[in-house]
Amino acid sequence: MLTPDELRARVEKYLDGLELAREVGALDEAMRYALAGGGKRIRPLLCLATAEAAGGDVEVALPAAAALELVHSFSLVHDDLPALDDDEERRGRPTAHVRFGEAHAILAGDALLAEAFSLALRYPGNEIARELARATSGMIGGQFLDVDGGSPERAELNRLKTGRLFEASVACGLFAAHLPADEHEPWRAFGADYGFLYQVVDDLLDRDGYAEELGEERTRALAAQAEDATRARLLELPADASVLQELVEEVSARVP
Amino acid sequence: MLTPDELRARVEKYLDGLELAREVGALDEAMRYALAGGGKRIRPLLCLATAEAAGGDVEVALPAAAALELVHSFSLVHDDLPALDDDEERRGRPTAHVRFGEAHAILAGDALLAEAFSLALRYPGNEIARELARATSGMIGGQFLDVDGGSPERAELNRLKTGRLFEASVACGLFAAHLPADEHEPWRAFGADYGFLYQVVDDLLDRDGYAEELGEERTRALAAQAEDATRARLLELPADASVLQELVEEVSARVP
Repeated sequence: MLTPDELRARVEKYLDGLELAREVGALDEAMRYALAGGGKRIRPLLCLATAEAAGGDVEVALPAAAALELVHSFSLVHDDLPALDDDEERRGRPTAHVRFGEAHAILAGDALLAEAFSLALRYPGNEIARELARATSGMIGGQFLDVDGGSPERAELNRLKTGRLFEASVACGLFAAHLPADEHEPWRAFGADYGFLYQVVDDLLDRDGYAEELGEERTRALAAQAEDATRARLLELPADASVLQELVEEVSARVP
Repeated sequence: MLTPDELRARVEKYLDGLELAREVGALDEAMRYALAGGGKRIRPLLCLATAEAAGGDVEVALPAAAALELVHSFSLVHDDLPALDDDEERRGRPTAHVRFGEAHAILAGDALLAEAFSLALRYPGNEIARELARATSGMIGGQFLDVDGGSPERAELNRLKTGRLFEASVACGLFAAHLPADEHEPWRAFGADYGFLYQVVDDLLDRDGYAEELGEERTRALAAQAEDATRARLLELPADASVLQELVEEVSARVP
């Protein structure tokens, strides 16, 4: 089985060589800019590591893994827009709308989403694309809850805004590995818990979300609890989950 | 075979009853507002009439027809945004961002696109979803050419911005009717020509595009020529194309 770093190298290489629809023309510059932002590629890694743990082939799972990263990139480009989170920097670089203008950023986000579906539709079956569509709707619904100014339950907000795409990352890996759908449940439960752990740690790092709501100490306790729960899920998987466990450790190691 | 008005009634009924992903929550209001804008439903009609002409079942083609309308709606909501065309009214109503705010409009557009794929993915095969993804990328590429401020060829701009979705409307009808792909060519050629006719007539009505570039008289001549070409395509179809011919006449009748 490949290590997280080896998987990450595969993802980067695949994304570097990714052919975008010819018809997007010069818009590809903004799309590639958004995609190349130095992200941790955690969703594609989760997809690939799951596929391999479930007996599948990393190469086969790569288009699905890339599709997940494109959906994630699309959401960042749109969420950063002035009308939404109004962020001018992301990972030390100007955000897409600052670099290319708002019109380009809106269209580049749209095109990343369309391209994600093209990738997911390279498979003969359509389970992966369906999973992606459901997760994308959930993610957008979560972002809507976040910007709508109401007071949504934080757990529900996270379940949609980040959780759905993490769960889909696991599910897409399973579909790519041809694991029958009736065996997906414990894997999906791991994906959902992993997404929760990721979000709590992210909130600790950014001092927002749970950290703002509960304070640092209680959020640290929540992160430790989420890590335990995620590890427990791994024990329930009928597979060698050692690489998935390394991915859990990567997240936990980020706790400041 | 159903008349254009009967087909339109089917589309309206289907869209009225359309269940959106539960997870988009209250964002559904902006999505339905955008969808219910009193459009002519020309793309879904083209899909359904094609499906029936090719020996298929209108009921079977309805999800594909609706998916095309959702993609069209998504594109209108985003194109109307201040950063793009900055339109405050569409068909006598405030545009989505005027009515709901920019953040909601961006997210509602995104959610309409995701929902369009969910609809296209209700089919067991994935040809319809693939067709939709390609057309969407082309359409976005066309919109990019339009706002980028360069001087693209008008024909190329139209081929992407409106033509691709018209051609896809025909193709989705053919896939829904299970017509083998190697028999699609003359139908697709009709769809592309129909899209061109539609655009020229639209430019005449809006006094922009070709009307601005060529003047009214030459644009009228172009519309007449496009109508002839589109009718000639119908004669090449190995099918009863009488309803498709009515759709051509509907467009021609709009010439001011």
